[in-house]
Amino acid sequence: MGAFRHGGRLHEAMAAYPDAPRPWLDLSTGINPEPWPGPRAPAEALRRLPDSAQLTALEAVAARAFRVDDPGRVVALPGAEAGLRLLPNLIGGGQTALVAPIYGGHAEAWEPRAARRVHAAEDAGDADVLVLVNPNNPDGRRIERDALVALITARSARGRWTVVDESFVEVAPDLSVADLAIERLVVLRSFGKFYGLPGARLGFVITSNELAREIRVLLGDWPLSADALALGLAAYADDAWRATIQARLAAQAEKLDALLTRAGLNVLGGSDLFRWVAAPDAHALFSRLAEQGVLVRPFADRPDRLRFGLPSRRDFKRLRDVLEVVAP
Amino acid sequence: MGAFRHGGRLHEAMAAYPDAPRPWLDLSTGINPEPWPGPRAPAEALRRLPDSAQLTALEAVAARAFRVDDPGRVVALPGAEAGLRLLPNLIGGGQTALVAPIYGGHAEAWEPRAARRVHAAEDAGDADVLVLVNPNNPDGRRIERDALVALITARSARGRWTVVDESFVEVAPDLSVADLAIERLVVLRSFGKFYGLPGARLGFVITSNELAREIRVLLGDWPLSADALALGLAAYADDAWRATIQARLAAQAEKLDALLTRAGLNVLGGSDLFRWVAAPDAHALFSRLAEQGVLVRPFADRPDRLRFGLPSRRDFKRLRDVLEVVAP
Repeated sequence: MGAFRHGGRLHEAMAAYPDAPRPWLDLSTGINPEPWPGPRAPAEALRRLPDSAQLTALEAVAARAFRVDDPGRVVALPGAEAGLRLLPNLIGGGQTALVAPIYGGHAEAWEPRAARRVHAAEDAGDADVLVLVNPNNPDGRRIERDALVALITARSARGRWTVVDESFVEVAPDLSVADLAIERLVVLRSFGKFYGLPGARLGFVITSNELAREIRVLLGDWPLSADALALGLAAYADDAWRATIQARLAAQAEKLDALLTRAGLNVLGGSDLFRWVAAPDAHALFSRLAEQGVLVRPFADRPDRLRFGLPSRRDFKRLRDVLEVVAP
Repeated sequence: MGAFRHGGRLHEAMAAYPDAPRPWLDLSTGINPEPWPGPRAPAEALRRLPDSAQLTALEAVAARAFRVDDPGRVVALPGAEAGLRLLPNLIGGGQTALVAPIYGGHAEAWEPRAARRVHAAEDAGDADVLVLVNPNNPDGRRIERDALVALITARSARGRWTVVDESFVEVAPDLSVADLAIERLVVLRSFGKFYGLPGARLGFVITSNELAREIRVLLGDWPLSADALALGLAAYADDAWRATIQARLAAQAEKLDALLTRAGLNVLGGSDLFRWVAAPDAHALFSRLAEQGVLVRPFADRPDRLRFGLPSRRDFKRLRDVLEVVAP
């Protein structure tokens, strides 16, 4: 089970279950299975250093999509992961509180320092840095925007930092606090999950102009691949696609819940990109699914939970058939 | 001139010289104009998180190309630039010496700390960190391997770090010290320059296993784009192409020198990817070239020097014709 500590470990799964039918249906991540359909960077773009004007233009179009007035506060980087890993060196030093359960990358970044886990943002007390994910992964827990704004404002007034990872907020846009120009707030955004293109490696840090400048120096002049620039520039400008997909993912998540419920599983929550499911013997169910070539996300410390990513419309039938075999 | 502080600023040049004939001939960088011809990542690869097994395989094939025995010492990252920017937080703290002239990225990374410029590696004295580029950019200065090994070994014995940026070493492979497992040595390698594909964003840090592990934590699990993984995996395994291109670039550099000399310019050195040229009024010559749509690299603090990147075989004739107009 250790090899599956986070999603996307299809290669390990194929080795562990060599007899499973192929191709695998990978539901181990929270990635939109029907990606933004626009073109990649032309081959020509790989032959040049990425143009700094393109980077600036991408930050401007992303700022508009995030409802951030000042694009100077938006820093593009090769994945939200790259951003969250930089933070301990930039704003760490004191006590950090992580709202658990939390994405493993935050734990890996902060736990070498003085970090403790709390069960709710309100339990962070006077921790110098509070890190939370909203909506949360894997359980989908939401902190409503008004409550979060109040918390961030109060913490900022006491000189405390708040890091809000909004990697899944595109499917719950009303929760976002990216637009707020509050001191000591850091917001992380991810391109790959909602746009279905994590292989491009694109994410953003949104923070004060001062910290944004520090981060730009740490990244250097060419943080992004040609694909990340080209895809991001066009995708964030495509408001119509964003609205269509938000509605479609909500409908598909409902359909997935019906499927899981029919299979006797208890859907506790999640987001429109993944569902958080109670199963009495989750690790055994994980194995039975894997034997059928379906990879979901187990949790070593939660033997009664699984996370199911959304299948594409095409793959719904296969999941239904597999569930009839493994959870009749 | 300020906008042209490093190469690759074609967009700014087009704005500053709107009447220049298009397409521009961009010789402002040291990038191989005839890139590795293998295929990019398939579209499918963008839809998944990059596989960690692919990353490990890339580090292994790159280690072999760099003659490094232990791939655990080789960390792939999105460009050598991303690596050099991380170093001050990891090994900084004391005095740093930069061997000047030096690539601007090193200066930007280190100069917010206690850093001074020295004219030769031997002048670094007991600086805690010494940063040098070999062969150097822009002047092509070389430190022979034996001398460099002696210097690194002596510094290491005194507890001092040496950072060797080998971004251009593929055209002078005998200089490389990447294979040495000496404590407190950090070597940087670049994919984009020799392989002609900087838009993929791929580079490497080669260092002790311990520092390599720290860097991996700072990068997270998915540092590379799908293109960087696919191109790097195949290109570093292609020994035949590497040998052919090394010979071809050497021949083309010779041909470029003949062209520049015939135009009355004095070639002082460089590498097989760029030439370092004395010109009595370099900034005026820069402008005359730009008016003809040829972008070279000027230096604000060296009004008597220009750097010419290698043109492709196809573009040699155009450069010859332009030189006949601007430096008859």
